[in-house]
Order: sequence, then structure tokens, then C-alpha cells
Amino acid sequence: MHVSIEQADRAIAAARRKAVELGTQMCIAVVDSGGVLKAFERMDDAWVGSIDIAMKKAKTAVFFGMPTGQIGKLSQPGGPLYGIEHSNDGLITFPGGLPIVDADGVMIGAIGVSGSAVENDHAVAQAGVETLGVWDLPEHPWRT
Amino acid sequence: MHVSIEQADRAIAAARRKAVELGTQMCIAVVDSGGVLKAFERMDDAWVGSIDIAMKKAKTAVFFGMPTGQIGKLSQPGGPLYGIEHSNDGLITFPGGLPIVDADGVMIGAIGVSGSAVENDHAVAQAGVETLGVWDLPEHPWRT
Amino acid sequence: MHVSIEQADRAIAAARRKAVELGTQMCIAVVDSGGVLKAFERMDDAWVGSIDIAMKKAKTAVFFGMPTGQIGKLSQPGGPLYGIEHSNDGLITFPGGLPIVDADGVMIGAIGVSGSAVENDHAVAQAGVETLGVWDLPEHPWRT
Amino acid sequence: MHVSIEQADRAIAAARRKAVELGTQMCIAVVDSGGVLKAFERMDDAWVGSIDIAMKKAKTAVFFGMPTGQIGKLSQPGGPLYGIEHSNDGLITFPGGLPIVDADGVMIGAIGVSGSAVENDHAVAQAGVETLGVWDLPEHPWRT
Repeated sequence: MHVSIEQADRAIAAARRKAVELGTQMCIAVVDSGGVLKAFERMDDAWVGSIDIAMKKAKTAVFFGMPTGQIGKLSQPGGPLYGIEHSNDGLITFPGGLPIVDADGVMIGAIGVSGSAVENDHAVAQAGVETLGVWDLPEHPWRT
Repeated sequence: MHVSIEQADRAIAAARRKAVELGTQMCIAVVDSGGVLKAFERMDDAWVGSIDIAMKKAKTAVFFGMPTGQIGKLSQPGGPLYGIEHSNDGLITFPGGLPIVDADGVMIGAIGVSGSAVENDHAVAQAGVETLGVWDLPEHPWRT
Repeated sequence: MHVSIEQADRAIAAARRKAVELGTQMCIAVVDSGGVLKAFERMDDAWVGSIDIAMKKAKTAVFFGMPTGQIGKLSQPGGPLYGIEHSNDGLITFPGGLPIVDADGVMIGAIGVSGSAVENDHAVAQAGVETLGVWDLPEHPWRT
Repeated sequence: MHVSIEQADRAIAAARRKAVELGTQMCIAVVDSGGVLKAFERMDDAWVGSIDIAMKKAKTAVFFGMPTGQIGKLSQPGGPLYGIEHSNDGLITFPGGLPIVDADGVMIGAIGVSGSAVENDHAVAQAGVETLGVWDLPEHPWRT
């Protein structure tokens, strides 16, 4: 489970500040280490279609312990994970989802952001993670 | 759409204060006037099964413009809406979901709360609504 | 997360011994504290329809931290949780699902059993739990 | 149906030994000849996202009587089975799923493995199959 509501709120607040700074309107989701939703916000005027994408990005990042964009590189046609998006009731494998790893090296959850260009989504997710820890895991097996 | 993120945050904060006052751990969801998720929080140690119930209560309340418990009275065996829970990818028709009606009489969204006895769920939802308006709609057709 | 594969295997083995003793053919599922599947077995000649029921019983027990049969008493027509089965992609609220609480009072997961009369399902689930701990939680909030 | 629980347990045990030997953490699923789940295990620290992938690999392998990777070659853009992953509530068509064919040439089920690079997934699945038979079917129509 791991991520607390205090932590989730802090990550979302930081992500929102970054979104405002970039002039974007985002959906922001935080899930726990099992992929279960902890907190969510849809900024005013954000794409309605981004709700599910933000949630799926967070889920995808925690389900495989890596940034969503990294999975997307492996799931291209001809790649080793082509079609992985069909699993787990749908994954999203472009950037904007990041694991959250705390100071003890434990993956406590993940954040997913959707609502703009994927570079912006990624930057906003990163701002959220950085309030709590880092998003690069050690070589698997990591600890949960 | 109507409900702003500033309003949703305010409603959730008030609901959380009430939940703490009651010594309960709640999942709290706010949806807009179309039933689409605006914000969500799962308090620490809340039932994992309450995430979906809170969301479905909010959706149910706004979909029919009435408290979920009121629909539940109509959906009992032999009642006029028996089985309505099978529609809309699942409704929840026991107390804890309330429409949010603003000062102009417009239904701007709804709140759904789950995590304790239904009386507590209802009380926490009510605390959330009262920061933004009221939860009793005029006779349908109301305005959205 | 909590429940280890060594623990899950031990619980399933004990449950199977009980099932054999009762002359029944069971599906047995163990989920972690987030409701995510850890291990599963379908005994030979068990009902195929029991696979999903066993999984849903385990999920239901951990989602609300109580035996499934206890939720079933509350979800009858006229009861406070009537229709709760429509949430969470389907719950099963008759006996056969039990939380697993370890010696420290932490709910580490749950077991769900289906394949015979509900009394037998419950007895087999109980045999599984008892290898790891107990299934009666203290008053909520418990710890996870 | 065919695969017995004794056989499924044996295949999973062999697969786990191989996974440990490779230093990997796997989800391992065995389905019967109808594609229905017989047994499943999630090793400690395995990716949560691998549960569904392991199950879908096993299902995919038995549904078409061939290794999942072989189907994946046919489902690439421009290929004859492009998009087949959209059928059957989702297929997984990269390596890690293998049919299980017994000494009589009967396809008794399949195994699906997920949790590492696809080469490792395949190797672990192969170790599971080899306790029970082989994974290369004669030209279709085979016997079930």
C-alpha cells in the first residue's frame, strides 16, 4: 500500500503547480504500490479523456516499476512487448507515468499525468514525484 | 460540467474534517454534472472496496438528481426501479451519495462517500455538500 | 501487499486437505492486502463457475475487512448495503471468503473458497486462514 | 479439460525452480485445454502487472495451439493476424506462453509466464512444460 494520503496530496499539489507554470490543464492520479487509486484531480478545462489516461499511466508505471514511456519503447511493432497494452484492462505506454521510490528505495506508488503534450505530462509527473522521492528504480528485484 | 476543482477540493476537505470528527476512514469522490470524476481521495486505512463505491454513489446521485438512498427505496424487490443497479455500468443505491446544488439552483455535481456505516457515509457527504450549496433539488426538471 | 507466496501456498495446502477431508472439490484463491491475486488452485472436478466466485470472495473479504457472509447479511433487500454486489466489478457476499490477520493484528490478505455448500466453503477457507493467523479483525481501523 | 491439479502444481514448481535459477520473479499460470485457469502463483516481488499477462499468455497459447511468440509474428502491422489481440477479451502475443502436449499427443493445457525479459519468460514456461510433455503440436488438426 505504502503511499499515504498526505504524501499523495503533496505530490498532486506539486504537480498542479508545475502544470500551472506550463500553462496546461492536467488530470493527475496517484496510485499505491498495488496500483490502487489513492487520489485524483482533474484541473478545470482538462480533457475529459485524460481522466482514464492519467489513471492508466499511474497503474502502468507501478505495475512494471518503470516509466510508462520506457514500456512504450518496448511495445512498438516488432518490439518484445508488442501489444502489452491489451493486458490489465488497458495500459498506457507513452510518457506521463512514473513510479515513486522513497528514500529507502521502496516503490511506494506511482503518479500518472495526462492533458497536454507528453513532454509536459512527463514534466508534471516528475514534479509530483520529486516531492516524495525519485522515479528511477534500482535493478529489479526492488523492494515493495 | 460546472463544479470547479477549487470547489471539489473544498468539498473534499470539509468531508474529510467530518470523517475525522466521526473517527472514520473514508473514500470521497466528487463528480461533475455529467457524472465524470473531478476529484477523489482515499483516506489512510479506508476500505479498498470503498473506492469504487464512493465513485458509484457520486455518479448515481448526479445521474438521477437525488440522494442515493432515495433511489434505493425505489429499487427494492417489488419496487418501481427494481434492478436499476444493473444500468450505467453499476449504480450504488444506498446512502452516501448526494447531488450538489448551488445558490442558483443548478446541480453542479455530486459527492459520494464510502467507508463506514451508511449513516456516517451520509453525514460526511452532507458536510461536503454544505460547503458548496444544498443537496435537495426542486422538482424535476431542474436545471443543469 | 504482505502475504508471501510461501504463506499463500501453505494456506492453500491446508485448505485442500480440509476439502479432501470433506469430500469436496474446491477452487481456492489467496489475495494480498490490496485484493490482488497471489495464488490460486482449482481442484480436479471442481465447478468451473467456482473459479471466479472464489476469487471474488477473497477480494470481497479483503476489500471490507470482514467475512463475506457478514456483508451478505447487510446486503439483503431492505438492508443498509442492498446492492453492494454491483460495485468493484462484482462482489460475492455469501460465506466462503475470510480476511487473514497475522499475529501482529495486520490484515495481510484474504482467502476465498467456492465449490460446495457455503458451510463447506467457509470451513475450507477457515482451515486455510488458521495456518497463518485469524480471520476476526479488531474494530476498524485495523492496520494494513 | 485434461490437465490435473497434480500436473499443474508440478509444472508450476518446475517453472519456479527455473525462475529462481535465473534470478527472476515470475507470475506463472496454468490453464486447461479449454483455456480455463487451473493454478496460478505470483512469486514475491513479481510485477503486479504480470498477473494478467501470465494468464493471458496461457490462454492465448491454448486458444490457438501454438507458442504466443509465434502468434505475435503473425499479428504485426501488415501481418495476416494484425489486431488479433483485440479478440477473446485480450490476448498477449509475445513469448512466454506455451501449449502443453502430453505423451499421447494431446494438448492438455498451456502455461503462461510473465515477469522478466521475454527470453526468460519463455525459458521458465519451457521448464514448466517439460515436466509434463512437449510444447510443439503436430500440424493442426491436433487432438484435444
